[in-house]
Amino acid sequence: MTWQLSNTALDEQQLLVNESLMFLGNGYLGVRGNFEEGYRDDFKSIHGTYINAFHEETEIQYGEKLFGFPDFQQKLANVIDTQEIEVYLDGERFSLFEGEIINFDRTLHMDQGYSVREVHWRSPKSQEAKLTFTRVVSFVTKELFAIKVDVEPISNVREVKLISKVKGDVTNYVEKDDPRLASNHAKLLYANEAKSEAGLTQVKARTERTDLEVACVMRHEHDGQHSIEHNGYEIIETFTFDGASNASLIKYNVYTDTLRHGDDLLEKGIQIQSKLVEFETILKEQKAYLDEFWRVSDIAIAGDDSLQQGIRFNLYHLLQSVGKDSVSNISAKGLSGEGYEGHYFWDTEIYIFPVFLMTNPEIAKGLLLHRYSTLDAARLRAKEMGHKKGALFPWRTITGPESSAFFPAGTAQYHISADIAYSFIQYYLVTKDEQFKQEYLAEVLIETARLWADTGFMKNGQFLINNVTGPDEYTCIVNNNYYTNAMAKYNMEWAYKIYQDMRESELVQQLGVTEDEALFWNEAAEKMLLPFDDELGINEQDDTFLNKQVWDFENTSDEEYPLLLNYHPLTLYRYQVCKQADTVLAHFLVEDLADDETIRKSYDYYEHVTTHDSSLSYCVFSIMASKLGYDEKAYHYFNETARLDIDNLHKNTKDGLHMANMGGTWLAMVYGFAGLRVKEEGLSFRPRQVKAWDDFSFSLRFRDRLINIQLVDGQVVYTLVEGDDLDVSHFNEQVQLSVGSPVSKVL
Amino acid sequence: MTWQLSNTALDEQQLLVNESLMFLGNGYLGVRGNFEEGYRDDFKSIHGTYINAFHEETEIQYGEKLFGFPDFQQKLANVIDTQEIEVYLDGERFSLFEGEIINFDRTLHMDQGYSVREVHWRSPKSQEAKLTFTRVVSFVTKELFAIKVDVEPISNVREVKLISKVKGDVTNYVEKDDPRLASNHAKLLYANEAKSEAGLTQVKARTERTDLEVACVMRHEHDGQHSIEHNGYEIIETFTFDGASNASLIKYNVYTDTLRHGDDLLEKGIQIQSKLVEFETILKEQKAYLDEFWRVSDIAIAGDDSLQQGIRFNLYHLLQSVGKDSVSNISAKGLSGEGYEGHYFWDTEIYIFPVFLMTNPEIAKGLLLHRYSTLDAARLRAKEMGHKKGALFPWRTITGPESSAFFPAGTAQYHISADIAYSFIQYYLVTKDEQFKQEYLAEVLIETARLWADTGFMKNGQFLINNVTGPDEYTCIVNNNYYTNAMAKYNMEWAYKIYQDMRESELVQQLGVTEDEALFWNEAAEKMLLPFDDELGINEQDDTFLNKQVWDFENTSDEEYPLLLNYHPLTLYRYQVCKQADTVLAHFLVEDLADDETIRKSYDYYEHVTTHDSSLSYCVFSIMASKLGYDEKAYHYFNETARLDIDNLHKNTKDGLHMANMGGTWLAMVYGFAGLRVKEEGLSFRPRQVKAWDDFSFSLRFRDRLINIQLVDGQVVYTLVEGDDLDVSHFNEQVQLSVGSPVSKVL
Repeated sequence: MTWQLSNTALDEQQLLVNESLMFLGNGYLGVRGNFEEGYRDDFKSIHGTYINAFHEETEIQYGEKLFGFPDFQQKLANVIDTQEIEVYLDGERFSLFEGEIINFDRTLHMDQGYSVREVHWRSPKSQEAKLTFTRVVSFVTKELFAIKVDVEPISNVREVKLISKVKGDVTNYVEKDDPRLASNHAKLLYANEAKSEAGLTQVKARTERTDLEVACVMRHEHDGQHSIEHNGYEIIETFTFDGASNASLIKYNVYTDTLRHGDDLLEKGIQIQSKLVEFETILKEQKAYLDEFWRVSDIAIAGDDSLQQGIRFNLYHLLQSVGKDSVSNISAKGLSGEGYEGHYFWDTEIYIFPVFLMTNPEIAKGLLLHRYSTLDAARLRAKEMGHKKGALFPWRTITGPESSAFFPAGTAQYHISADIAYSFIQYYLVTKDEQFKQEYLAEVLIETARLWADTGFMKNGQFLINNVTGPDEYTCIVNNNYYTNAMAKYNMEWAYKIYQDMRESELVQQLGVTEDEALFWNEAAEKMLLPFDDELGINEQDDTFLNKQVWDFENTSDEEYPLLLNYHPLTLYRYQVCKQADTVLAHFLVEDLADDETIRKSYDYYEHVTTHDSSLSYCVFSIMASKLGYDEKAYHYFNETARLDIDNLHKNTKDGLHMANMGGTWLAMVYGFAGLRVKEEGLSFRPRQVKAWDDFSFSLRFRDRLINIQLVDGQVVYTLVEGDDLDVSHFNEQVQLSVGSPVSKVL
Repeated sequence: MTWQLSNTALDEQQLLVNESLMFLGNGYLGVRGNFEEGYRDDFKSIHGTYINAFHEETEIQYGEKLFGFPDFQQKLANVIDTQEIEVYLDGERFSLFEGEIINFDRTLHMDQGYSVREVHWRSPKSQEAKLTFTRVVSFVTKELFAIKVDVEPISNVREVKLISKVKGDVTNYVEKDDPRLASNHAKLLYANEAKSEAGLTQVKARTERTDLEVACVMRHEHDGQHSIEHNGYEIIETFTFDGASNASLIKYNVYTDTLRHGDDLLEKGIQIQSKLVEFETILKEQKAYLDEFWRVSDIAIAGDDSLQQGIRFNLYHLLQSVGKDSVSNISAKGLSGEGYEGHYFWDTEIYIFPVFLMTNPEIAKGLLLHRYSTLDAARLRAKEMGHKKGALFPWRTITGPESSAFFPAGTAQYHISADIAYSFIQYYLVTKDEQFKQEYLAEVLIETARLWADTGFMKNGQFLINNVTGPDEYTCIVNNNYYTNAMAKYNMEWAYKIYQDMRESELVQQLGVTEDEALFWNEAAEKMLLPFDDELGINEQDDTFLNKQVWDFENTSDEEYPLLLNYHPLTLYRYQVCKQADTVLAHFLVEDLADDETIRKSYDYYEHVTTHDSSLSYCVFSIMASKLGYDEKAYHYFNETARLDIDNLHKNTKDGLHMANMGGTWLAMVYGFAGLRVKEEGLSFRPRQVKAWDDFSFSLRFRDRLINIQLVDGQVVYTLVEGDDLDVSHFNEQVQLSVGSPVSKVL
């Protein structure tokens, strides 16, 4: 059961949630779990098919527009719809909202990579049939989304009819008054071609401003009577079957788009169609792909099936959403919905990238290459923001331009530039890929260090960075945010290191880095102000955080959370109240900048003023609780992450899954419970026994090795599964690993 | 010449500026100086007639909308247009852009209250005539805007034709990309009735959301042939005259609106029409009104006609724009244009109200009563902003709701609540009107003090106010802005004083003020943190202002000013750079909170980091320069105010006149050069001789007296013109004034 997610609910709110939970994707294509046969007219489904990074740009409206506010916002576009297949029994249309549901079950198979929906239905006129909808988005052929419909008549049905559609004209979902959703511009895509040729249904559509094109080439496999009808850019195909036997229809939908397939999208789609294997083989390939994925990426626990299911669910959905082609990244909601409009945030670098880095480094590299492809846009943005040099990465974007329309919690989050630099460094630490260093890492480090050098300044022997926003969005535009300064310090240190290493390189010459410039990075890093409060013995979140009143938590009711939906930002800024981990996160990422006592006291302090209104918070508190030996808290916070979407804890899973939190589950287990750290010296572990679990194991990729770590019976077992011998650190003790020689340590 | 403003320009940019400079108004009605006969088709005129406070509400669009952001914005609506009168000579249409202009002059008569435009024109077909357009907006009958057109044929013209229009359907002006102008929603008003009855043209129009109605009842006086044509909600009347003699047409336009005239607007307009006196008498009434205005309000200087003209121009336009009915106030651009959308800001209280307070206290009282009428809206806004008690006045509004769409430089300017309280106190100090105190002052003070008590808090024996924005909009959302804290201190001190005085009153009971609450205001006022930097010996603008880098003024070109049009706000926030007087303004308004040395050092410091990109800045620097004996600077900054609009120094006079700056001219002379202060002790003066002027004199109203102050020949002469004996202070020396006994003091 831990490899499946099943549900049987039919109420409206849960169905919307299930559309997200049951979404299928492969990092390129994502299809929400909508019902093929449709809904009641009054039912508000969020109907969607998305291609990662396929977007339109829409004008941003401002009540008062100031200099440097982005004119346009990129938006993930809902693309050509192939989900609809109506089912008729002797003319009666099948619907889950009419007649009698004798049995209903929908299951996502995370070990197999498909979903299946089984319905035993009795119509209002008492016709009866079993219907099975099997859906797959292929991990092997990324363009493919296939649906198989099986109808098994139970009563005496004369005719089964299936009507399958491809719709070129679609709209995006809009909802007013929730800042996390689009509030206008529903129509992003315009169909411009629809034809039936050579047994293939071919539809194209394009965006207006970005001038991107998407095509779908669709083929049916069936043994019924067939007819075709065109209705504008909608192609409707009808299949009739003799009710005496079972009816079956397979719909192979192949999507192509400008960003990956060049100009002749239909031709490309036809080629891909021609090479498709049959449905059952697709499912087998899918299984083989996932077998390998899970072999490396699974985290197994014994003793809690519900949590186990949540863990696998989260990992599975990360795999389904992460871009694997370096044209795309992983958006805040993955490919599961339209929340945050398909934008890529720092969520990638800090919450999701590490998961892939340590299990599927090629995917991790793709994420970095995507960021690298936006470096010129970041240089441009730095200029717009008044900087003389450097690269300022946008708070939210798809292909590079800043798409944030509220700068205090958007553009002002300069830390994203350090976060990106950090992930590039992490990649290098894990892979020691020298070519990567020279081709990508160096340039990113130099340009981000330049940003910091231009943003901050030396005063009284300290380097200060003013007027930025840290991760905590309830405290915006502050001076010397600890997180930002700590990350910028690390960023500049590394930039100086790389400069020293590569000073003679073509790149360094070409970028015009001077010795003085690099020395300044080093000096700024050394003298970086890291706010510390003597009285409390904690790192202060920023220069003035502790000068504020603590939020009146006692008189804040449960209904008032998340606070951002009930309080004006200025009210929130005025109090000590954090939406999410900020200083505590810095204490995880750059832990060596603070001593253990400061880290502990800071944790204790910030825990009391943090609402976790952001889904990016729990996992960090879990990791740090593990580090501090707060085992119950570590487990508690971890628990909030593992089933956040399955149990719809944030009440907005309908808009898509919380990808960063899903990464956070892995982080809490691996960096938290197992105490993994990756530093220049290599891997180190400080595992803690999780009381609730009899057994807890996972694997890591590290410089061409595969290592398994198992916590069981009060000990940890390190096993090198593949690769050359390796030393790792276990509580500061060096442990040598060789294939075939697991090492056990008592906890 | 100093009583007139004349111009002859016909280039497009200057014509737009002249539309503002030549506007006519009376505080109720405002008509831009558009040409009756129209323009070339390609000419972009800002055509407008406005009724103070007559507004529509439009939805504000946000890229990301957060809690508490206003949904709607009020906008001054352009109303029914009566300006158009086409002129034809034997069928040739008169235009300043065709034929030959033999002579052209347009003059605003500030002593007489009308404008006249004289044109000697030769048509392309060589017809020749002198045309005179005389316009008046009556100060006596506020609903009246009249135009008289005289045509004197010079050549042998057979027929003169005038076509006069009333247009019910009008739009507002929009311009993208300037945050100071509306960027959308051009259509605010919809005509719904147009008829010709009983010799009157009657047109009505209404707004959709606010459901306000405006009507125009128009009558022509003429001796020509007359015909009427209807074109939708446009009524077109044609008058033909024998070209052998002069032609003359007078158009009496009477405007009524829901806010002042109840329901039956046409009926009300007809009544007003029936009582109108003839045109020449209107001009005489106008002169009589202005004679009295100038008797009290004029500031005369000898030795600089250009400045003298500027001074009178500024005073005249304040009179033309200020609401006199307590239904309206005075908007940032007065009634001269659509910049800042007709909103009322703190400009009223700090820059304009004092002018009327000291010259026309009844007008000043009207401004306060208008604010008082918005107190409930301010209470509501405080609640929305998370306050448990108190009133938060909106940054920009017409009838009370917050209309600011960018809170860092809008709603966050909490100081406006203290500014309003300050003006209420000033009114009381000047008038000692006890009834006013009990009916209005007390309630405003209590509710604003409550706001401060709830916004700030005691910490380590100091009262702190965090996360507000002071006057300087280049430094937003800061802690302990000196200006805000100083003004809040004054506000709370006075609230406590009033409480002590009125603790048994019905009002205090009704508002539920407790002794503890009032004591807390007193304590907070006493312990208010007023940032001071020991090293520099200055009041720091806020807790962290001096922690920033000073803006690189040396490498900023002239074209980069105003900085707000060339730099992202975050960039500006990051540096020591002020748009306008902030701490320096506090040192004027509540001067007793700082010693002279601090005030001097602060002035010297902030002068170097202030760009005066706001038109609210120069006058304050002039006042304070006078106080500090920086006479040349005082004169220099004053000079920047006096002709700011006439010379279009801010390059945006086309959008309307800068009312606050116009008030600032008066302030710089009276509070600056003459060193007036109004305190509980009464009036005090510290006059400084202005070298450039041989003679400088003005009058003040103070508790039913009229006092004249003249600086001439190295001495100041105080003359009590009307009223009981009065003591005033001259450089700390008491001077007793009696009618008929001027007192001279050597300077």
